[in-house]
Amino acid sequence: MARESPRVVIVGAGFAGLWAARGLAGAPVQVLLVDRNNFHTFLPLLYQVAAAELEPEAIAYPVRSILRRMPNVDFLLAEVDGLDLAGQQIQTSAGTIPYDFLLLAAGSTNHFFGVPGGREHAFPLKTMADAVALRSQILDCYEQAAHQTDPEQRRQALTFTIVGGGPTGVEFAGALAELINGPLRKDYPRLNNQESRVLLLEAQDALLPGLPPRLQAYARARLQQMGVEVELGAQVEEITDSAVHIAGGRIIPTETVAWTAGVQGLSETSAWELPVVRGRRVAVLPTLQSPDHSNVYLLGDLASLEQAGRALPMVASVATQQGKLAAQNILRQLRGQPPLPFRYHDKGSMVTIGRNAAVAHIFGRSFTGFPAWILWLGVHLFNLIGFRNRLLVMLNWAWDYFFFERAVRLILPRQ
Amino acid sequence: MARESPRVVIVGAGFAGLWAARGLAGAPVQVLLVDRNNFHTFLPLLYQVAAAELEPEAIAYPVRSILRRMPNVDFLLAEVDGLDLAGQQIQTSAGTIPYDFLLLAAGSTNHFFGVPGGREHAFPLKTMADAVALRSQILDCYEQAAHQTDPEQRRQALTFTIVGGGPTGVEFAGALAELINGPLRKDYPRLNNQESRVLLLEAQDALLPGLPPRLQAYARARLQQMGVEVELGAQVEEITDSAVHIAGGRIIPTETVAWTAGVQGLSETSAWELPVVRGRRVAVLPTLQSPDHSNVYLLGDLASLEQAGRALPMVASVATQQGKLAAQNILRQLRGQPPLPFRYHDKGSMVTIGRNAAVAHIFGRSFTGFPAWILWLGVHLFNLIGFRNRLLVMLNWAWDYFFFERAVRLILPRQ
Repeated sequence: MARESPRVVIVGAGFAGLWAARGLAGAPVQVLLVDRNNFHTFLPLLYQVAAAELEPEAIAYPVRSILRRMPNVDFLLAEVDGLDLAGQQIQTSAGTIPYDFLLLAAGSTNHFFGVPGGREHAFPLKTMADAVALRSQILDCYEQAAHQTDPEQRRQALTFTIVGGGPTGVEFAGALAELINGPLRKDYPRLNNQESRVLLLEAQDALLPGLPPRLQAYARARLQQMGVEVELGAQVEEITDSAVHIAGGRIIPTETVAWTAGVQGLSETSAWELPVVRGRRVAVLPTLQSPDHSNVYLLGDLASLEQAGRALPMVASVATQQGKLAAQNILRQLRGQPPLPFRYHDKGSMVTIGRNAAVAHIFGRSFTGFPAWILWLGVHLFNLIGFRNRLLVMLNWAWDYFFFERAVRLILPRQ
Repeated sequence: MARESPRVVIVGAGFAGLWAARGLAGAPVQVLLVDRNNFHTFLPLLYQVAAAELEPEAIAYPVRSILRRMPNVDFLLAEVDGLDLAGQQIQTSAGTIPYDFLLLAAGSTNHFFGVPGGREHAFPLKTMADAVALRSQILDCYEQAAHQTDPEQRRQALTFTIVGGGPTGVEFAGALAELINGPLRKDYPRLNNQESRVLLLEAQDALLPGLPPRLQAYARARLQQMGVEVELGAQVEEITDSAVHIAGGRIIPTETVAWTAGVQGLSETSAWELPVVRGRRVAVLPTLQSPDHSNVYLLGDLASLEQAGRALPMVASVATQQGKLAAQNILRQLRGQPPLPFRYHDKGSMVTIGRNAAVAHIFGRSFTGFPAWILWLGVHLFNLIGFRNRLLVMLNWAWDYFFFERAVRLILPRQ
């Protein structure tokens, strides 16, 4: 079969995959974007779905809507089962797909560091399904507690534990504390709100590793003001369906353990024979190409690349920038030009803690409180895809801000 | 255990149950509302969730939010497993609950009239989970078709069959035709839109039984204009995973059969020993009381009551009015007054077909087209619970109306 133009297959419709597709739109290539979901998930706000603040639809965007303006880009809803890099094809649940160029941007998955019970009992926060399941679990615990007459069982149901004091753990802890102290207190007038606890466990001696100590201290103090019990140096040793065990012998009865402590590139089960390094991420050249296959690019959380001696973080801005460069490099290869090396332009990072409270570290300057919070709001709204999603998120945030309310408190049936 | 005030247990947080709770708010009774979901579903708009027009959150409202202003009403999230009318208690998944008065308002369930394969292969449209599953199925069929090279298989995936020409079938057929001819045509530019079919099968010789012939004819003509193939006198004999069999030997290859043809009161499996009549609805006295137990009320779809020789329809307005009367009758019983008989005030009915097109039969007068459609919009918005839900629904409808767009096209993972 003669093909007019080279075929580029992109695996993953996250930030890296979408920006790569965008970079290839209109170019003399045929692009096929493959994802297991028909929507792109705006992961930076996923924790707000878990905290009953946003409906899933507000942070998900149908991939085909994004691709409408890109006539040379098609979409395939499928699971990738395996790679055949020598044969230049991938195996998917919808059949074998040949490629001339392959962009792997499949993201990352949970890493439980071998903690017993982690995989079975902890609630991860990596996918839309995870977020909806965690939301249902929290609301379900309240429903159980409402009619539980045994005080110990009730306290166990109302103890919510978050493992991991990175950005996701901090943001989720704050959002959960606000959910509990506002709407849920009003929803359950017969429950004693003092029995509800939010614990944030971090193994290291500070929250938000990598940020300046002043911002770490602000985040911790602010969470504590909101009623979150922050425990530093707390090493989780085991998770059961009713407790979390901490090194030193302490056992905390809790039915809900949210896991935000670790992610890795490839899951243990994915049979992709790629050279993995630390964190099961895949080694890449500075040009984002695979060392062994110059027509295979690795992007986003999956790719392990160092800059100034430090591994690049698994964040949306790295993925976006890599997606853009990979598209550019493929077009350079097609024109016979050498691919360019990746340089991450770190614009800084921001973490919101709650109402009027955030920390931001931008261009080397630190902000806290209301200015950081407004900045956080603006940047996240700006980066959401689609006018309607922006409107929906704004509507929800305004609702929450002015009425101290959460609109989306549905326990959806688990099928 | 001494109880200060009589205990009223309401089973079901639909229209009947909620309006009964509202009628008992502030009265000298303790009320417990039991439902398997923690939210009330606005069923008249459920088909719009299935047609990717509204997100589930737009037509669901947390029960506890509604109950906040009713201090004597509590909520229990539980499944009802059985009744013990002699012992005055109900068995639930959360334990046994004693009552002084019981209001059964558990709604209705699907009735497949013994059609083989109905239960296994048809997609019902009775619950939020049903609507989300049907939406995922429709979008999934498009994704399959997009990469299906066999033309017969592709046409089978793109044939959507709706069984039942009552209000739900007509409304869903119209909404589905608009989804297919608008947003999906734009999402799948490589598919030939001529291959998509929407079939509406009705066993009787008219759509919308009970409405004046002029409105029936209007609905049929309008659906046909929108591309829906309306087949009257089409008796479904069997449903498989790839076809629907019609009496007379015709077999239509189709992967999606939406079932709106029949509902019944109690499911076959519910072990509630109540005297059932036609449609497995439960016989009640005109006062809505059980003939055998004067402290048990039966409301809504579950209850079978005739007025002027005709069974009352299974619609929201009957349920709402019965909920109000049951609350009143319990309070009358407590005061030693005789309960009042139910009289249905039929304000008429309305069915929307599509953009600017609806039929309405109100106070004996018939309307079609734009006036009926505006009336339909207004009445449904007015009856939605919660300002935020109204806003969200209006936002979605305006989006759809002005941009010919559907925002909510997510295929959610089946767990």
